[in-house]
Parts: sequence; C-alpha cells; structure tokens
Amino acid sequence: MSFTPFNAPLLSGLLGDREATAFFTVKAELDCMIGFEIALAKAQAGQGVIPSEAAGQIENALHGFEPDITAIGAETARDGVVVPELVRQMRNAVGKPHAERLHFGTTSQDLIDTSFIMRIKSLLILLESRIEQVESILETLQVRFGGNFLMGRTRMQAALPITVADRLASWRTPFAVHRQRLGELKPRLFRLQFGGAVGTLDRLGDKAQAVADDLARRLDLGAPDRSWHTDRSAIAELANWLSLVTGSLGKIGQDVALMAQNERGEVALSGGGGSSAMPHKQNPVLAEALVTLARFNATQLAGLHHALVHEQERSGSAWTLEWMLMPQVAIATAASLRNAIALLRSVEGMGEEG
Amino acid sequence: MSFTPFNAPLLSGLLGDREATAFFTVKAELDCMIGFEIALAKAQAGQGVIPSEAAGQIENALHGFEPDITAIGAETARDGVVVPELVRQMRNAVGKPHAERLHFGTTSQDLIDTSFIMRIKSLLILLESRIEQVESILETLQVRFGGNFLMGRTRMQAALPITVADRLASWRTPFAVHRQRLGELKPRLFRLQFGGAVGTLDRLGDKAQAVADDLARRLDLGAPDRSWHTDRSAIAELANWLSLVTGSLGKIGQDVALMAQNERGEVALSGGGGSSAMPHKQNPVLAEALVTLARFNATQLAGLHHALVHEQERSGSAWTLEWMLMPQVAIATAASLRNAIALLRSVEGMGEEG
Amino acid sequence: MSFTPFNAPLLSGLLGDREATAFFTVKAELDCMIGFEIALAKAQAGQGVIPSEAAGQIENALHGFEPDITAIGAETARDGVVVPELVRQMRNAVGKPHAERLHFGTTSQDLIDTSFIMRIKSLLILLESRIEQVESILETLQVRFGGNFLMGRTRMQAALPITVADRLASWRTPFAVHRQRLGELKPRLFRLQFGGAVGTLDRLGDKAQAVADDLARRLDLGAPDRSWHTDRSAIAELANWLSLVTGSLGKIGQDVALMAQNERGEVALSGGGGSSAMPHKQNPVLAEALVTLARFNATQLAGLHHALVHEQERSGSAWTLEWMLMPQVAIATAASLRNAIALLRSVEGMGEEG
Amino acid sequence: MSFTPFNAPLLSGLLGDREATAFFTVKAELDCMIGFEIALAKAQAGQGVIPSEAAGQIENALHGFEPDITAIGAETARDGVVVPELVRQMRNAVGKPHAERLHFGTTSQDLIDTSFIMRIKSLLILLESRIEQVESILETLQVRFGGNFLMGRTRMQAALPITVADRLASWRTPFAVHRQRLGELKPRLFRLQFGGAVGTLDRLGDKAQAVADDLARRLDLGAPDRSWHTDRSAIAELANWLSLVTGSLGKIGQDVALMAQNERGEVALSGGGGSSAMPHKQNPVLAEALVTLARFNATQLAGLHHALVHEQERSGSAWTLEWMLMPQVAIATAASLRNAIALLRSVEGMGEEG
Repeated sequence: MSFTPFNAPLLSGLLGDREATAFFTVKAELDCMIGFEIALAKAQAGQGVIPSEAAGQIENALHGFEPDITAIGAETARDGVVVPELVRQMRNAVGKPHAERLHFGTTSQDLIDTSFIMRIKSLLILLESRIEQVESILETLQVRFGGNFLMGRTRMQAALPITVADRLASWRTPFAVHRQRLGELKPRLFRLQFGGAVGTLDRLGDKAQAVADDLARRLDLGAPDRSWHTDRSAIAELANWLSLVTGSLGKIGQDVALMAQNERGEVALSGGGGSSAMPHKQNPVLAEALVTLARFNATQLAGLHHALVHEQERSGSAWTLEWMLMPQVAIATAASLRNAIALLRSVEGMGEEG
Repeated sequence: MSFTPFNAPLLSGLLGDREATAFFTVKAELDCMIGFEIALAKAQAGQGVIPSEAAGQIENALHGFEPDITAIGAETARDGVVVPELVRQMRNAVGKPHAERLHFGTTSQDLIDTSFIMRIKSLLILLESRIEQVESILETLQVRFGGNFLMGRTRMQAALPITVADRLASWRTPFAVHRQRLGELKPRLFRLQFGGAVGTLDRLGDKAQAVADDLARRLDLGAPDRSWHTDRSAIAELANWLSLVTGSLGKIGQDVALMAQNERGEVALSGGGGSSAMPHKQNPVLAEALVTLARFNATQLAGLHHALVHEQERSGSAWTLEWMLMPQVAIATAASLRNAIALLRSVEGMGEEG
Repeated sequence: MSFTPFNAPLLSGLLGDREATAFFTVKAELDCMIGFEIALAKAQAGQGVIPSEAAGQIENALHGFEPDITAIGAETARDGVVVPELVRQMRNAVGKPHAERLHFGTTSQDLIDTSFIMRIKSLLILLESRIEQVESILETLQVRFGGNFLMGRTRMQAALPITVADRLASWRTPFAVHRQRLGELKPRLFRLQFGGAVGTLDRLGDKAQAVADDLARRLDLGAPDRSWHTDRSAIAELANWLSLVTGSLGKIGQDVALMAQNERGEVALSGGGGSSAMPHKQNPVLAEALVTLARFNATQLAGLHHALVHEQERSGSAWTLEWMLMPQVAIATAASLRNAIALLRSVEGMGEEG
Repeated sequence: MSFTPFNAPLLSGLLGDREATAFFTVKAELDCMIGFEIALAKAQAGQGVIPSEAAGQIENALHGFEPDITAIGAETARDGVVVPELVRQMRNAVGKPHAERLHFGTTSQDLIDTSFIMRIKSLLILLESRIEQVESILETLQVRFGGNFLMGRTRMQAALPITVADRLASWRTPFAVHRQRLGELKPRLFRLQFGGAVGTLDRLGDKAQAVADDLARRLDLGAPDRSWHTDRSAIAELANWLSLVTGSLGKIGQDVALMAQNERGEVALSGGGGSSAMPHKQNPVLAEALVTLARFNATQLAGLHHALVHEQERSGSAWTLEWMLMPQVAIATAASLRNAIALLRSVEGMGEEG
C-alpha cells in the first residue's frame, strides 16, 4: 500500500493512468493558470481596462515562464491556495511598470477553477475515446460470440438460458447513454470561472461582461452570466458521471469474475495474473480492478456532494475537499476504462456453442 | 431518535414530508403493480398473446382489488420480493380459467421497477413545483431587499461589500440548471421496465416489442429497446439530481445560519425554534435542517452508486440496497424543499440599507 | 420501494426487525425522557437543589404520564427538538407550585442523548445475544460438516482444497473480537448526558457533579466528568462497531451466495426464496440481504463521521443528522443478525465428504 | 487540483505530511517485505522447515537488496500484486540451490498485509506523539486564556456565557479517549499476517504455529491463532479511529473559523493565509483544512467498510480497495494533526477578559 495508487511506481500500472495523470501534474495546472493570465490581459486590453502595452508585456514575460514551484509549495501551506505566490512570481517577471496590471480584477478561484475545467475538458476527450473503444470491442465480441449460449443468472442462481449477445447488450447499452449524458453536461461544465474577489467582478465595472466573454472565447470555454464560485453543481455532476461510467464497468468486471469461475468457464481470458504461491492460477485481476475502481468512485462521490454546502462567497473547506477528491475520481475512471479495454481484448471465448 | 425520520410522529414535520411519503406507502406501491398487470393483460390481448376474455376477466377482478398485505409481508421475508405472493393473490382473485394469463411473461423486477418509476414520476411533479416556489420567493426577496448591502465573505472572513441581490442570485441560479438537468433526465428515467425472467422477454417471442410498446403507452412511460434490469444508471442519476437539489438548499441553509448569528443580524427571520433551557433564543432550525438533509443525501448517494455493481441478470443484493436508500433520498429532498420554502418565506429583512 | 424498510409491512420482515424497532418507537423515546425527569428531580432533591415535595409531585404527576404526541410533533417542526413541548406538557401535568422545578438546569440535549443511550443499552443486549447465537450455530455447523472438503478460492478462482472447518473458522473468529470491542466501548457509551444549556451545568453551581453522579446512578449509566454534548466520538464508534458486525455478516452472506451457485452446490439450504417467473428457483435471499445490510451500514457510517464536525456548544445540523442515521444503522444490524441466524440454521450440508 | 494532495509539490505542505508519507513510499513497502522474507527464513530454519544454510544464504542475499522497481511495476499491472515479481527477483538474488526456500509456504497477502501493519505501527507512534502535542498546547492555552469569557453558542445562536476553559475542555477531552481507544486497538492490529495460499499454512504442516510464533516475535508483532486474510475488521477499526481523530480536529477547526469571524474576533491568530485579490485579509486556512481533512476521512471510511465484504479466501477487489484508501486516510490524519498543532500554536488570544 503506497500513499497513492495513481502514480506510485508499483500500483499505477493497474490503478493509475499515465495519460490521465498528465492532466493533473503541477506543470499542467500552472500552465493553464499562466495561460489564463495572458488571455485575461489581452481581453482587458481589448476592452480598454488595461493598456495594450501592459498586455503585450505580460504576454512576453509569461511566454515560457517557469514558476519556482518550491516557493509556491511553501507559501501554499500558508495561503491555502497556490495563486498568491504564483502571481507574485509572475508580476516579478513582468516587472515595472505593468506588473500590477497582471491579475487585475481576478482572484485565486478564477484561476484554479478555470485551470481545472480546461484540463478536464482535455481529459474528457481521452475518456470518450476510451468509451468508444469499449463499445467497439463489445460489438466485436458480439459478432464473434453473440450466438453462443450462456446460462442467465438472477440472484446468483441459474435462471434460463440467454445468448452471449444478450449479456453483451446489457454491458454495452449503458455507454451510449453515458455519452449522451456527457454531451448534456459539457456546456454546463466547460465554462469560464471569472468573478473576482467576491464573485461580482467588482473592479471591472461595466466592462465586466465584455471582458468575461472575450476571455472565455480565448480559452475556448463558455461564458456564464455570472460566476459559479459557490455553485459547485457542475463539479458534482461531473463526479456523478464519472462514477456512472466506473459503475457500468464495475458491473462488467463483476460479471467476468463470476463467469471466469473454474466450474463455469463461461469466459476464456488470455493473460491473467499470477500468484506467488500458486503458479497454476490465472487470476482475473483486471476484472476485479473494475469492481475496485467502481467502489472507489462511489465512495468519493459522497464527499463531492458534501462539498456542495459551500458557505457564503467562498468556502475554503468545501473547495479544498474538491481538490482532494476530484482528480482521483477522474484518474480512477481513466484507469477503469483502460483496464476494461485490456480485459475485453483478452476475451478468447464466451458461452457455449449451441 | 425514532427509527425513521420520515414518518415518525415526532420528527416527520421537520425531516419528513407528508405529500412525498404518500408515494411510498404500501398502497401506492401495490396499486401501481396491480395497474401494471391490468395494462399488461390488455396489451397482451391486443397482440393476441392472451385471449381478450382473459384480459377482461383480469381487469374486472383487479378493479379495486385489495391485497392481503400481512400475507405479502410474511412471504416477502422469504422471497425477498413482494411479487410472488401478490401474484398468487391476484391469480386467486382472477380465478379459473384465466388465472395463469395474469403475470404472463413478466417478472417481479418488471413490477417493482415500473411501480417505482410511476411514483417517482408523480413525485417529481411535486418537487418541480416546489423548486419553482423556491425560485419565486427568492425573486420576491430580491425585489424587496436586493438593493441592500451585505458584507461578502470568503473563507469565513469579511472580504468586500456585495448587495443582497448578489447573494440571492448565487442562491437562485443553480435551480434553473437543476430544472434543465431534470428535463434531460426524464426520458431516461420514465421508462417501462419489462424484461421477463432474465430480461429478454423470452416467453413473448416476436410479440415482445409490440407488447412492450403498448404497455408503455398505457402506463404513459417510454418504451426502451431492451429492459434495463441490470443498468441502474438512471436510478443513480436520479439520486445525484436529488442530492444536487438538497446540496444547493444546504448552501442556502448554511448561509442563513451564518447570517442569523447575533453579531451579524444580516437576516431577520420570523418564527424560529424555541429552546427548553433558554426561552429567549430563536434557533434557525429550518436553516440547520437544510444542511442536515443535504448531508443526509450526500451520504446516501454513495450507496446508490455502489448498487451499480449489479451482477449478471439480476442482483438481489444491489437491487435491495436501492430500495433501502432511494425512497429516503426522495423524501428528504421533498422535506428540504418544503423547509426552504418556509424558511425563505419567514425572511423579514436582509442586509443593510445603503 | 416503501419509504422505510424498517417498519413497512412488506419489507420489514426481511430488512427490518420487530424487536429492535421497539427501542425506537415514539413511546420508548419519550418514556426514557420522562424517566430522566423523574430521576433528575429525585437527584436534585437529594442534593437540596429543589424541595423534596417538588420531586414527589413530579414523580406522581409523571407516573404513567401519556404525552400528547400530535402536539409534540407539531411543535417539533418549529423547535427542531421534541423537548420544549414535552416539557410544557409535563409541567402542565405537574402543576403549581412545582412545575418549574421540573427540567431545572437541564436541556433538550440531555434528554435526547440520554434517552438514546438508555435504549441503545437495551438494544445491545439483544444484539449480543444474537451474536452469540450466530457463533453457536457456526460451532454446530463445524461439528456437523467441519471435516468435509471445500475448494479454497482466492480472487474468485479455485486455489487449494480446504476444509469446511477452515471456512467456518474465518466466519466465526471475527465475532469473538467484536464482542471484545463492545466490552471496551460500553463504558464510553453508557454515559449520562447532562450539561444544561451550554454543557456547563451553569445553574447547578457546586451541586452539579453530585447531582450528575446521583442521576447517573439512578439511570444505571456512567457519570462522565463533563458533558459530551459536542464530542460525538462514542456515537461514531458505536456506528463503526455496528457496521463491523454487519460487515462480517455480509462476508458470510457473500460466501453463501457464491457457494450456493448451481455449478458448485457447496452449500445446501432449506427454504429459499421463490420467483414469480421461475418457480423452480431457490434464491439465497437471506444471504443476499446480508450483503445489502452490510453495504447499507457502510454507507451510513460516513454520515455519522461527518456529524463529528459539531460546531460550538451544540450543532443543530450535525446532531439532527445523527438522528436520521443512527437508529437505521442499529436496526439494520439487528436485521442482519436475525437473517444470519435464519440463514445458518437453514444450512443442511456444506462441502463434500472426503 | 493536482492528482494527489499528499505528495504534490503544491498542496502537500497543507494537505500532505512528509513524515507520514515516508511510511508509504515504495522503498518502505518493499523493505518490510524483504524483512519479512528474511525473518521467515530464519523462523523456518529454526523449526527445521528449511535448512539453516538456506536461511543464511537468503539473509545474505537480501541484505541491502535493491529490487528493480520498474520491473515490479510492470508485472503488478498483470498480477494485481507486487509480490510475484518481487519474489522472482529475490530468488534470483538468492540463487541456487536455495532460491526456492525463499517465500516457502507463504503468499502475497502475508507480505502485503504484514508490511502494511509494520509501517502503520511506526506511523501510529508519530500520530500519538502529535496527539499529545495537541493536548499539551490546549493545556497551555487553558492556562493562558482559560479564565476569559466567551459567548457559548448553541445551534449557531448566542446562548449563555461560558469560559474559554469550557470551550478548550470540549476540544481536549476527546483526545484522551482516542488514546485509550488506540491502546485497545493495538493488540488487534499489530498482528502478523501469515496464512499461505488459502490462509491455512497448508505447506507447513504441524510446524505452522511454531513458525508463525517465531516469525511474529522477530517482526515484533502479535501472532494470531489463525490468519486474518479475510477478516478486515482491524483495518476498518483503524480507519474508524483515524477518522475519529480527524473528526475531533475538524470540530476544533470549525470552531476556530467561526470564532475568527470579523464581527466576533473571539480568537486572535498570528499568520493566516493571504489572498491574491485582497491583501488585507487573513484567512483561517489551517482551521478550514481541519474541516476538509475531517470530511475527507469521513468519506473514505465508508469505502473501507464496504471492503469488509471480502469473498471466500481472498477478495482481490475488496483488498485492492483498501490499498487505495487506507494510506490516504493515514496521511490525512497526520496532516490534520500537524495543522492543528500549527493552528493552536498561532493562537495569541481567546475570549474576553472578565
């Protein structure tokens, strides 16, 4: 048991996911924040909020800017957020006379939430593509084995014969609906966070919406009518969606583990995990991992709904709880999809020929 | 602490909801099941699966049929589901020669899931109407007090002044989105469950889809391409939606409890709970209850996602877990909405005049 | 799906428990509160805090006192607690001149928490006796079938042969430790709650500890050094213990459901649930219910730990959350034990003779 | 939001803990496993199960042995456990003729569980010492400010005045009980895991218990009568204990955040977090983090109780779920204690002089 399953050298191959983790590195996080500041400066210059020269100087200074991560980490323990020290470093890099134009009218939460959304947007492309792979492999399995017979089982007891196609359809159908759900969720989720100190963009006056619209356009996000600093529903809905995906994969994993029982042999898998004590065994490790990751996400989801009780204009405690849970849920989903693809690809037979 | 907060004479006025509970009585549950059997007989007669006389006899016998609930309860402890004994009683009532035509080709899960969906459909009308009331009262408060000033607070500290309208907008905005989410969820949720023993409608042959379509039409539900016996995503999505609603209400409750602190007096409430030891106190009981109900639902949601791991053609254990959690989440949401309406109606002042 | 599994006529035979529910009726709850007031009056009279005549009049008036439950329910919706209206009624019954001596120096939380502890104390006797029954049946099964062979299974795959005694030992061992845990928990749990308005017994002056000691003795509870109004650790620890018990039973249930699979037939059960569609089936309903109840309690436990964040001298929201969860966890544990006893008693064979 | 709060350069200063994380590094994990094999070889040699030369050769080969972690990671994705490849590497290092004597009669779970317990044992020393620091600082605060007045608050409303000493006592009291709980838990937790392939030490015959006893003695752990492969109660109990600790600290954090509100100023803190938008603010970041970490652990605890449903002789899915949750809960507890110490040390005033 290492301290995290997601990047530990030992377990991450099973429970983590290299591609998904890349969206949650410090560099990925800070790069999005730096990009936010550049886009903000341009949007504010476009609306005459700051001088054009300031925007130019900011862009030049931040192009390829590499923050001092150790210093940010040290200050974060005090500030609770990475942004104050990051802004200080960026302003240092910008220098006089425009340093103070950077980060004008915005606040930590704008950067942190928007950076998260930008990365989630990319991650969801990865997840969608994996979902399509799962569906496609299931379709291939149906072509190959769909006509075979399988004992239908209810309440853990043999009921009536079904076909392998019936079982495969019950596995595949949910994913089409998950993709539909995701399509509906996207416009709610892919939105700029931009509210300033207390969510009202108080320092931008009547330029607020115009700056927000332009900033959103530059970051390829939607521009909400007002900031969502305190409305974390879209985050909780995302977590729910991710856990629906791992739940549907967990059902497949549980079924495969049951089908692979020796007395049944309803599925033949290539590969399979070895045992240190019993070399003859072939453990359905990937199938079990699907169950594990489903239960992991189901567990975390509760915490993300507790974080909806977000007091006043910004809750440090509820917001920080999101940070502890959300990346893990996202990576667990990526891992589950990757494991499912590998598991289903390893299927060499299902059911019995009629 | 009584065994249930939802209908106990003492706590149900605060934590339960009489109107919502009505959809989860034994009578409501069984009536929907009986209605299912009548509609099924007609649909099957229409497709020539059973004789028209059988459908007529079934309808006559079940019209106003009152099952022996004690007997059903006794058998449920053995069967795990209410349906076998209910069907036995209904067949007794139908009598010869058509008794066996009743419940033909269907199974317990079809009745239980469809009965639940029918009642949830009605309940959601109640909840939607309450959501609209919450929104409408918030709008009224904005008209009355929107221009007043309030200290904006981030991380529990005074930050910058905002208007009462700003705070109220942060309370109201989520509900419009919740209604949109519900609109998208409905077609996924309001669907007939009809799959027979193992989800394949094996006994209906090529009449299966036609019977399903007609049955769904009669029950005013959608007809899915195949049964969703093992895909509980829509149930979990419903739970997520309900918990989003209580989460947004919990945020309001938490804010009101903070605003009502004596040193702040940012909100004036009429009523408020008395104390047995300190008659001078006015406790923000309804505000606290909103937080409680939000955390209650957040907690339950995890269990409903664990229930997605639904093995093979029917999982007794996962399905039964839904029964223990889902009605409670639904009623808690109704209670939270009712309390929010009462709390917001009791607001007599907010913020300070400028 | 009825609104509560615990007393609904249909599901309570499986998921509820008549004996356990009796400790959570309104009558049981209020009777303990009334008993608290009588004992308090006597203890206070003994210390000269109130006149002896007052204590006598209180005891006489409350002997057999039947509160108006409807009125209490109505006021509870406003006060958030049952006590203010109950006290009003009790004082009415006591009448002049001693009415105000009743409930002197105490508060709602003292009554509610102590009433809960008194009833949990009785309930735990029931649970312990059932645990001993489970252990005793497991011992009987070991005598009857312990020498038979069973395939040991790891990661859902056949591993090496074991004996039925090995499997049974893995089922039985945890319960001895659970009983030990309970023994340690009892003195932490069976404690009087007595703190008055803000937990300091402010109105009792230097008689506070003496009254507390005498009151505790009369109620057969421990007397803590100070009130535990805000320290809910013992409640959370109780919930943990209950969920450990249902978890260990859930493991048995999961094993039995796997052993009862048709291809294995490693366990023979009498009885078993019928299906409305497939009369030939024998569903391991009780085994599944053990898994359900384990997952139910695991889910609730999170909520009870969230309730540890109990702000200042009394948190309405956290405390009320306990009320919604704790009785359910307790009853679910009783139901699980009862089902386990029935399931294990129905075992007619295990493993294969060597 | 980085992928893990526990070692990310940015957030780990707040939410992670360097000292605690050290017990969950790959090196710490594998070193304990290697130590297990050396001790096992000696214990088996002592009982004549393997030749003394084999034990000597094993000890020599493994002294300072550095496994190829990349290779282990690669195989773990297939095997689900690190042990098979680690054993292969260790046997390679031992070489002929005694390679096969290494890992004789034992299995992955013995190594993984025992390694976890050995490290938890060390970690708990750290946690206990921090708990004592918390208690000691609270005592100091009582000496300094105990006589000051504070408004006692129930249900978020001013109730009656108390002293700072009253509030501090409500914070401190739970920790003495937590230490008592830990004392009781230790002998249940600090136990060797040693069961071999299916928990029965099948290959060690009548030497099994003697080897187990000697092995346990060498590792300074208790020797249970039988393996606890499938009884995860002690793990769940540990998680409960850790979450009790963070819950009690969360209560302190919530109180401090409320006391530090500007209108109240009931606590004066040095330091405090800065804001990127409002340099004048002093955010009670550490207080909020205590609430966050309490809710984090409360959330995870549910998952650890779901993992009690551990099927047959070893559940891959339930066991792996523990790995994902347990180290996080442990580190979160260490972080919470460290933050509490820093927060309480920063207190410069409490309440008002009388």
